[in-house]
Amino acid sequence: MTVYLVGAGPGDPGLITARGLDLIRSCDVLVHDRLVSDELVAEAPDHAWVISRDGVDQTALNELIVDYGRVGLDVVRLKGGDPFVFGRGGEEALALKAAGIAFEIVPGVSSLAAVPAAAGIPVTHRGISDRVTIATCHGADGNEAEYARLAAAGGTLVLFMGLGRVEHVVAGLIAAGLPPETPAAAVSRGTLPDQEVVRTTLEHFASATAGLAGPTLLVIGDVAALELLPSISPARAEPALH
Amino acid sequence: MTVYLVGAGPGDPGLITARGLDLIRSCDVLVHDRLVSDELVAEAPDHAWVISRDGVDQTALNELIVDYGRVGLDVVRLKGGDPFVFGRGGEEALALKAAGIAFEIVPGVSSLAAVPAAAGIPVTHRGISDRVTIATCHGADGNEAEYARLAAAGGTLVLFMGLGRVEHVVAGLIAAGLPPETPAAAVSRGTLPDQEVVRTTLEHFASATAGLAGPTLLVIGDVAALELLPSISPARAEPALH
Repeated sequence: MTVYLVGAGPGDPGLITARGLDLIRSCDVLVHDRLVSDELVAEAPDHAWVISRDGVDQTALNELIVDYGRVGLDVVRLKGGDPFVFGRGGEEALALKAAGIAFEIVPGVSSLAAVPAAAGIPVTHRGISDRVTIATCHGADGNEAEYARLAAAGGTLVLFMGLGRVEHVVAGLIAAGLPPETPAAAVSRGTLPDQEVVRTTLEHFASATAGLAGPTLLVIGDVAALELLPSISPARAEPALH
Repeated sequence: MTVYLVGAGPGDPGLITARGLDLIRSCDVLVHDRLVSDELVAEAPDHAWVISRDGVDQTALNELIVDYGRVGLDVVRLKGGDPFVFGRGGEEALALKAAGIAFEIVPGVSSLAAVPAAAGIPVTHRGISDRVTIATCHGADGNEAEYARLAAAGGTLVLFMGLGRVEHVVAGLIAAGLPPETPAAAVSRGTLPDQEVVRTTLEHFASATAGLAGPTLLVIGDVAALELLPSISPARAEPALH
């Protein structure tokens, strides 16, 4: 009789939380984002109603989870990454709170560190970067991001939703004073079997990332030159979920 | 025959990843941080060697995991939060890579968004904050953090390891131009049963947070005034792990 706003993690189904997986396995209704893995969706019980939110706008989605919550069902709203890191989970929580529905936020592994990690990039590293700024590639009002402010923070910059805007990002950050030779990496479909990584510098970022598949995360700063991956790949046990 | 650098999440044992939990349950050696939950440590198999890293310095710790990895054991190095967000996981990965040991990074739910979420604070929220900067309360060289740069980024500021330095943080950020009435929240022992939350403004932050228990995360910015918690608390099933 609760709505759970659950983060599914960055892509690899094994990266959902233990609690999130338990909730999927006992829910009555599962409302999932398009990008959430099929393996996680398949964990819902046979009796559960499984609904993709694909094509449902945010207002209608808020009404949907309020309505199901109101009739006393256990609803899992499964979102990519973490509900509160560019996940619009706050809007869903506000709608539930306003309607007096019991709900719980179950955080997820955000792409912000997990996707760089899958490429061997630590977003913080002793002696290299002691801070990280996370933003999207467009401002809150749909306009250009405030590159001068993003560059001013120093440290690592992690940008969501940047594919197709890399030229703007590069021009904005270089105009704001970042050196053209600043290391830059793009991770396409991070943590998934078809992950692709591009490592370059800011000045070559637009050409190097052309043709990458989405979702792609951009990492800019000295850590982007690190590659903390093993020389020997460990064997990966399958399946991801037990 | 692999070393796994596994993020344990922010405190609540249910917030470890499904994959991380599987790895603990099948490891030969578990080397854990002091702050990791007893419930997670208890999931190691009976035959496993369980070692607390408490009192072991970083160099000795790196040698320990390299040595156990070299003799062909499955080693889980269980770290609070995420290994690559102020976790010094990069240093451990470098040591393993240099020694030619197979290893894997298994990301965790970082406190950076999960701990504010447990207090009903979304680090990003449409129309309020479209970016977040994460830092510690001391610079890479052990000196004061660069408050002017942190304030320049705009958006939400999330500060780790700030308890006992709140006065410096406040003075630095106000000197850098943040209004004294900027919303500020501190979350002590976030996601744990004894979690405490303080909500105030920057100018009253030092007095309001005096006496809080660590670890405490500081959240500064307009989102810190939000409280997206349900009016009705959902029932929480126990135990956290199944």
